[in-house]
Amino acid sequence: MASTTPGTTPRINTQQVSDALLGKWKAERLQSRELVRSNPSLHTIPGQPMDEHRIRVLNQLHELVDAGAIQRAFPTYLGGADNHGGNVAAFQELVLADPSMQIKGGVQWGLFGSAILHLGNKTHHEKWLPDVMSLKLPGAFAMTEIGHGSDVASIGTTATYDADTEEFEIHTPFKGAWKEFLGNAAIHGQAAVVFAQLITRGVNHGVHAFFVPIRTADGKLLPGVGSEDDGVKGGLNGIDNGRLHFTNVRIPRENLLNRYGDVAADGSYTSDIESPGRRFFTMIGTLVQGRVSLDGSAVRAMQAALAIAIRYGSERRQFPGASGRETVLMDYGQHQRRLLPRLAETYAMAFAHERLLTVFDEVFSGAKDTDENREDLETLAAGLKSLSTWAALDTLQEAREACGGAGFIAKNRITGLRADLDIYVTFEGDNTILLQLVGKRLLTDYAAQFKGGDKAALARAAASQLGDRVSRFGLRQLGQSIADLGQTSRSVESFRAAEAQRELLTDRVETMVAEVASALRDATKDVPKAERAARSEDAFNAQQHKLIEAARAHAELLQWEAFTEEVDKLSDPDTKQVMTWLRDLFGLTLLERHMTWYLVHGRMSGQRAEAVTAYIDRLLGRLREHALDLVDAFGLDDQLLRAEIATGIEEERQQEAQNYVDEQRAAGLWPVHEKELRAQAKAAAKAAGQVATATS
Amino acid sequence: MASTTPGTTPRINTQQVSDALLGKWKAERLQSRELVRSNPSLHTIPGQPMDEHRIRVLNQLHELVDAGAIQRAFPTYLGGADNHGGNVAAFQELVLADPSMQIKGGVQWGLFGSAILHLGNKTHHEKWLPDVMSLKLPGAFAMTEIGHGSDVASIGTTATYDADTEEFEIHTPFKGAWKEFLGNAAIHGQAAVVFAQLITRGVNHGVHAFFVPIRTADGKLLPGVGSEDDGVKGGLNGIDNGRLHFTNVRIPRENLLNRYGDVAADGSYTSDIESPGRRFFTMIGTLVQGRVSLDGSAVRAMQAALAIAIRYGSERRQFPGASGRETVLMDYGQHQRRLLPRLAETYAMAFAHERLLTVFDEVFSGAKDTDENREDLETLAAGLKSLSTWAALDTLQEAREACGGAGFIAKNRITGLRADLDIYVTFEGDNTILLQLVGKRLLTDYAAQFKGGDKAALARAAASQLGDRVSRFGLRQLGQSIADLGQTSRSVESFRAAEAQRELLTDRVETMVAEVASALRDATKDVPKAERAARSEDAFNAQQHKLIEAARAHAELLQWEAFTEEVDKLSDPDTKQVMTWLRDLFGLTLLERHMTWYLVHGRMSGQRAEAVTAYIDRLLGRLREHALDLVDAFGLDDQLLRAEIATGIEEERQQEAQNYVDEQRAAGLWPVHEKELRAQAKAAAKAAGQVATATS
Repeated sequence: MASTTPGTTPRINTQQVSDALLGKWKAERLQSRELVRSNPSLHTIPGQPMDEHRIRVLNQLHELVDAGAIQRAFPTYLGGADNHGGNVAAFQELVLADPSMQIKGGVQWGLFGSAILHLGNKTHHEKWLPDVMSLKLPGAFAMTEIGHGSDVASIGTTATYDADTEEFEIHTPFKGAWKEFLGNAAIHGQAAVVFAQLITRGVNHGVHAFFVPIRTADGKLLPGVGSEDDGVKGGLNGIDNGRLHFTNVRIPRENLLNRYGDVAADGSYTSDIESPGRRFFTMIGTLVQGRVSLDGSAVRAMQAALAIAIRYGSERRQFPGASGRETVLMDYGQHQRRLLPRLAETYAMAFAHERLLTVFDEVFSGAKDTDENREDLETLAAGLKSLSTWAALDTLQEAREACGGAGFIAKNRITGLRADLDIYVTFEGDNTILLQLVGKRLLTDYAAQFKGGDKAALARAAASQLGDRVSRFGLRQLGQSIADLGQTSRSVESFRAAEAQRELLTDRVETMVAEVASALRDATKDVPKAERAARSEDAFNAQQHKLIEAARAHAELLQWEAFTEEVDKLSDPDTKQVMTWLRDLFGLTLLERHMTWYLVHGRMSGQRAEAVTAYIDRLLGRLREHALDLVDAFGLDDQLLRAEIATGIEEERQQEAQNYVDEQRAAGLWPVHEKELRAQAKAAAKAAGQVATATS
Repeated sequence: MASTTPGTTPRINTQQVSDALLGKWKAERLQSRELVRSNPSLHTIPGQPMDEHRIRVLNQLHELVDAGAIQRAFPTYLGGADNHGGNVAAFQELVLADPSMQIKGGVQWGLFGSAILHLGNKTHHEKWLPDVMSLKLPGAFAMTEIGHGSDVASIGTTATYDADTEEFEIHTPFKGAWKEFLGNAAIHGQAAVVFAQLITRGVNHGVHAFFVPIRTADGKLLPGVGSEDDGVKGGLNGIDNGRLHFTNVRIPRENLLNRYGDVAADGSYTSDIESPGRRFFTMIGTLVQGRVSLDGSAVRAMQAALAIAIRYGSERRQFPGASGRETVLMDYGQHQRRLLPRLAETYAMAFAHERLLTVFDEVFSGAKDTDENREDLETLAAGLKSLSTWAALDTLQEAREACGGAGFIAKNRITGLRADLDIYVTFEGDNTILLQLVGKRLLTDYAAQFKGGDKAALARAAASQLGDRVSRFGLRQLGQSIADLGQTSRSVESFRAAEAQRELLTDRVETMVAEVASALRDATKDVPKAERAARSEDAFNAQQHKLIEAARAHAELLQWEAFTEEVDKLSDPDTKQVMTWLRDLFGLTLLERHMTWYLVHGRMSGQRAEAVTAYIDRLLGRLREHALDLVDAFGLDDQLLRAEIATGIEEERQQEAQNYVDEQRAAGLWPVHEKELRAQAKAAAKAAGQVATATS
């Protein structure tokens, strides 16, 4: 049933692909893998009751400290390594130990510690960071409130300055302002970085961060601090998430993390950043690390899911084929359709993540810390994190189903990872909101192109945008001429060309953004000023879905670009060939997914659309032979995967069954099936009938 | 932001819609709801450790017995009610108590008990069913094997008849033949219905079912019987799933459940059904009840998910709008896009399920037990179960995300239901395999149309099929003429007409099936007989994905038909109007989802495609106002939902916050925001500049 062409079966150089995936921070990744691999005490125990799991995870965090696994991002003078990219790269590998451990560590060092590091001053660093790093001081990151998830600017907690005592009073004036979903808040946290509206001299200067002690070292809540346990969650039950509320809790003025805004003893407010809006986004922007980390972690989980499903699918057999033996699952067309496009997507996302991590490192190391780079980082992280965390859930689920009942058994890992990663799609930024953020950035960039032009010129440009692109890239003509030729084989050629894929993907992003921009502009044209805000809001709401789709398209394009860049770097020709097929599968799957758009916008003919699907089918047939190699390149051995069905156990069982049947047959003990007897009888009757006819 | 047209705001009659959903077995449904509502001992405890949960669920099963909740489907002479439809209807409500209880009950009475009932004779019934019903005899349903999930015909367990002792020897000759994933197998089961290849006098008569004792009443495994615990699973951890293996276990000849095939004392085999294939499918067919039950249970879980998300989304506010107040989530275009089409789908699936349940009851009550009805039942169950169980996971996940972090907290129910329902998509028939089954049936029906015709006629008919349909329904012309008119408002009219939606949906199913049939036929045309099997297999594999999509389209059409039928029955005009919009939303969402197909096949113009999306947007705006009513009709009160965020708690919090702000403002204590000060200063500076200019 395999459909490789004889004589054209390249094999990939697994090491080369593996190195491409390991990227720039190969050493840190391998170090972290080794840590996970060799320490069973760091591994999830499926079904462990919540209370025990929480204790275990706290202990695991101490192990990470002892192993030197969490210090990388902190300053060298505190025993760190100022290695931001390497820190995140290593962190991501922890998802395969126990996601609860990973995320509780993320709370402690990536959020609580990072906030002190990036929003505080050197005195703050020296005072608190050593204990944060050693876990002597476990802390919570108190930003989200019950009433405000994504809209941090609107939080209700206040920090009111009292010049008489030189203190801030931290207060949650109503239940909606209670801090919510905070790791370390229910039990272990002794302090919290609390985000609150900074009020001094009767003026609200917007959201700032404050260091607030919440519990004694032996776990007693401090006066005015209240806590509620969030209890059992859909996953990540090794983390003690909870709520915190504050009733007139007083902290010294110096506990304001004052890097971007400060209050003097007399209550006067100063900030290097004049605009309150920009100041807010600058402070929040320092927390992008969480999104970067989740993006890479999601990719790692996808790799695990596919390694399990593809290894099992390459051994498991179901339903007898024409050959007499049962068919291997991976040989079924539908099974290939389910797993291989997701494999291509995983590669695209891994390479895109490497790019993101590079920009992140450039900004946070200070090597290229410009406003523009920070903005790019923000946009890139928002787009990639959204797509990869959603893709992880989708891929884990598909892998679960592709493994059937075995996929549902906890010891095969998939369901546990899925449950834990569920929340990744809404924490550190709800994916929908994040994509909207990306969309708004795209609109801003689009508008900037026309800056200085008058409104009429802008409108004309927008109106001609669609036509322009079509003629510039000649896509419509290309599509049509191919359709006229009517030959699938010819039309396929054009999709193979990376340039054609790039043009089609780029065109879609640009056109979608132009369309949304144009609709938004039209909605407020000639509208009286008083009504403009409401009309503009209605128009935005009507375009929201489209804008989010444009943002998605933009992130997909970035993934495709990253994949292509990596393929171009490969030196081994066979490897390059196979990886090009895989990149093509990714690109064509995107085209197929969005085919309605291409058809409606005249970028594709119907025939060309069918050629895309036909070529995907060919690529699936070719890549099927490389599926095992492609998951081997993920570097996931039995100690990392810890999934029984991915260990070769099914192949052993198949062999045992086959041997039994062979032996029984050889010994003449294999019973004949009633079906065969009936077939024989029928044949005999037919022959007898013919004899009867001949003699009659 | 609401977009209802003034003067056109009908309200639905919730009771009428509720009654339509309750359907024919309203009494049983309400009875079962009341049982769940009023018995906290039947409710899931989130995070309960597996061992405790298993004990709790066993106790719950005893409660069900005591409540008379499980007897309905059994014969009246054993204390049952011969009420098959009512039994399944009531069973489905149990998913909102604890899915573990539901499924363990399903194993005990719906599989183990049903197999004895439907595959056994009256002696069997009298001997075992009373204890099965009372739970004195907990049992397993031992069909699936480690090596064979969906392919039951190929199982490896043997039941070899020994005429000397008049016994069958049950044997699992290799590990792949071990029975796997069986509820009640790990701990509680004392007997099992074991499916095995029946071998007598050296002939294998195929798969038959046998009653096999496995444990003593005090839980000790009987000689030759082995058991392994499947341990923790991704969900349903209140069930003791496990493996069973048999080493030459002997049972009396009479333990063969012999309704469709029997072995006499001398070892001679007899059956009323001559063909071994048909015999197998007849036996397996008696087990369709499981699929019917899962279909309805999935719908019920979707209803719960949407009730939670829509109630919470109607109270929760995020981001300030133009009005000054924060916007309610359900008013966002994207939020409507996420939830309302799924609400429409849930209604469609509920009504389709009612149809399925009716056919099921007709067959099982004997009222219309024909071969044709059994086949229809089989196909309907396979198609609907696949789509609804997948849709349940999708809807639960979307609801989870729409509720943000709150959706992830176990006390809000969604994650637990999702984890438990995960396995519904691959048990009682893997959805992919089930859809393939439906696809094959469609191919058979398609071929039957041409029965008697010669091959050339068949080919000609197939070739013209596409053109025929187009001209018969005039779809191409219709689409084109509308496109030529170029008016969205005009083209929308045609989609409103139920007839147009039906034609488009029907056309797609028929054309897809015709295309697959034609491709399969072409693949073996002029191929030598020796190669035909392999070529045919390759061709089928190449068409597998398309055939599965055709089956999906078929099931979607059935759902649409069922929805339309119910809408037609509604008497209240306002209700009918709103439900028609909802049906339209379902129909148009299907068209939008499959738009590529309609475009490629020339059934839609690009402009018409855009009109579909535009009309969906209008429907979303209209239906937003009815969303709460539409989930109220599901009859889910706080005792059934038990989701904190669906109880009005968010509205209370919003009100408390608003009151606080209002009070502070009234008391002059509300601090001015730095942004306002800056805006005021800017305005003042501008005014001063104008004054300066005027006076200069």
